[in-house]
Amino acid sequence: MPDSITLPWASDFHCHLRQGAMLEAVAPMVEQGGVRTVLAMPNLAPPLTTTQMALDYGARLQALAPRVRFILTLYLSPALTPAEVERAARAGITAVKMYPSGVTTNSEWGVGDLQAYHPTFAAMQAADMVLCLHGECPSDAARNVCILNAEERFLDTLRDLHRAFPRLRIVLEHATTRAAVECVKALGDTVACTITAHHLFITVDDWAGQPHHFCKPVAKFPADRAALREVVASGHPRFFLGSDSAPHPRAAKQGERPAAGVFTTPILIPLVASLFDALGCLDRLEAFVSTNGRRFYRLPPADPADGSITLTRAAAAKLQIPAAYAAGPDTVVPFMAGSELAWSIASTDA
Amino acid sequence: MPDSITLPWASDFHCHLRQGAMLEAVAPMVEQGGVRTVLAMPNLAPPLTTTQMALDYGARLQALAPRVRFILTLYLSPALTPAEVERAARAGITAVKMYPSGVTTNSEWGVGDLQAYHPTFAAMQAADMVLCLHGECPSDAARNVCILNAEERFLDTLRDLHRAFPRLRIVLEHATTRAAVECVKALGDTVACTITAHHLFITVDDWAGQPHHFCKPVAKFPADRAALREVVASGHPRFFLGSDSAPHPRAAKQGERPAAGVFTTPILIPLVASLFDALGCLDRLEAFVSTNGRRFYRLPPADPADGSITLTRAAAAKLQIPAAYAAGPDTVVPFMAGSELAWSIASTDA
Repeated sequence: MPDSITLPWASDFHCHLRQGAMLEAVAPMVEQGGVRTVLAMPNLAPPLTTTQMALDYGARLQALAPRVRFILTLYLSPALTPAEVERAARAGITAVKMYPSGVTTNSEWGVGDLQAYHPTFAAMQAADMVLCLHGECPSDAARNVCILNAEERFLDTLRDLHRAFPRLRIVLEHATTRAAVECVKALGDTVACTITAHHLFITVDDWAGQPHHFCKPVAKFPADRAALREVVASGHPRFFLGSDSAPHPRAAKQGERPAAGVFTTPILIPLVASLFDALGCLDRLEAFVSTNGRRFYRLPPADPADGSITLTRAAAAKLQIPAAYAAGPDTVVPFMAGSELAWSIASTDA
Repeated sequence: MPDSITLPWASDFHCHLRQGAMLEAVAPMVEQGGVRTVLAMPNLAPPLTTTQMALDYGARLQALAPRVRFILTLYLSPALTPAEVERAARAGITAVKMYPSGVTTNSEWGVGDLQAYHPTFAAMQAADMVLCLHGECPSDAARNVCILNAEERFLDTLRDLHRAFPRLRIVLEHATTRAAVECVKALGDTVACTITAHHLFITVDDWAGQPHHFCKPVAKFPADRAALREVVASGHPRFFLGSDSAPHPRAAKQGERPAAGVFTTPILIPLVASLFDALGCLDRLEAFVSTNGRRFYRLPPADPADGSITLTRAAAAKLQIPAAYAAGPDTVVPFMAGSELAWSIASTDA
């Protein structure tokens, strides 16, 4: 086992950077976490439903973090006509995010009937855009659907979409179950899967009575976590990092109705490296945090000329995770606040 | 459907009354909730492990709520020798509570190896004491045990105990799963089951992101809640009310690590009546909140000469649940705080 690793700057294919004061605080933390390519989620208020809105957001992001490459996304809604898809693709927007209505933060504008969007998906397939799925069914007590099986119940929809649009690249975001992992593995090369850092660490026991570990989809059984760990340790080429880092002010997490979201941006790659070390699969780290996702998103392989990061597990360099980060008038509590990671970023090159 | 119902004062066969300022606040709320017989849990700090401790606690309870009949319990620990069981039984202590180590509030003194307690269980069976079980296995990721299946995994232990001590009366407390309901139904007449009010209302979706609905065992799938509702609606004689009402100060519920427990004591019988009305089984209300539990605990049937409560669903008498109750220097947020119940207690007799 090496005591230090040099990687190209990493890529995070699912990140919530927010807006306003929160964005200003969080955008500079992307590099702090070892990342210089970020797919930025469009679930702002209001959501990014048009090409112009996404471009304006991209310009704002770029101004705040000039060395980071931002991959822009649109929020699937009736505004996303086939003509708008073509406009977006021409403007360099890479992906479209679909939220089922009501399942997570700012998803209240989300999608009910998928069939109505088939012309949009056809246009995306033609324009080679990527469809990112928040893969959960809305809860429905009469059908025994709740947050514990919402992902598994969604998989038929994923299979149907892939069958209907076999050339459309689809990413099942933030998989949390063995069922989702097995489903994605069984589908074709146009279907990939992101996994967060925190879902590699936690199970349901960790978010019950711990609002800073509460997110959607919720972490599930130990056997599900084991499936996530196994697939990243295997280096499967269609599984890669999408942190789903989602900052909320502390008050929104510790009130009567804690918001869903785990914040990992400023500690992201040390967090993943520490886990991969513990799992004995550091040799898969670069595939997970860089190679696999870039290949699927058809980005050029990370170029050492664009700089690199060196991670260390020197005893004297352990990463002490802060109790909280300042974010404008608020503070944001990170994942594993106050604890220590074995790996840290020792240096960066360029 | 009647618009008013008169019942004997109800019985709650599982209640946390706490100690200190919290106890002083909560004990008088028992009657407010329509209850005059309460089985008081022994998981204080330190736990009630000896006859004398339980008697002292009982005297304290009685002084605070003179008209309530308190059923006293001991906390199973190595202090509970067969000789201590006999002493407790002679002193009128009714039941012994077993907490697996580490599963809920003040369970850190709980039980690991059950076999070691077989002489105690034999003495309890001989003395006709009741064994109350917090029926959850401790989480164990290697065996895929977590808070979602901890109850189901415990059922083999329940079956083993019943097989080893067939005349020992056992109560599986606060059942939350269809598996537990079916297990208890299949066992003999010496095994009964309590169900809380809140588990008849909520599923996992309701405590995720809602710390005041978080308790142990956690509420599970909609199909599990349906099984609880079905068995109470059926009037099964071995299922009865044990509220597991468990007050915590607001700060302990809304902090970084919310404590487990739902507080229902001051609204208990209106809450159950409102649900039974919605389920169309008001004719089973008295069995659930009085008859079944008293029969199993070998208490005399509730005597109308000891007083009664009259519940109403008059539109003008809806019960507005407070946002919080004062408890010494703290406040306690009740279940369904701020919402309205269709049924309230219109009057009490004696």
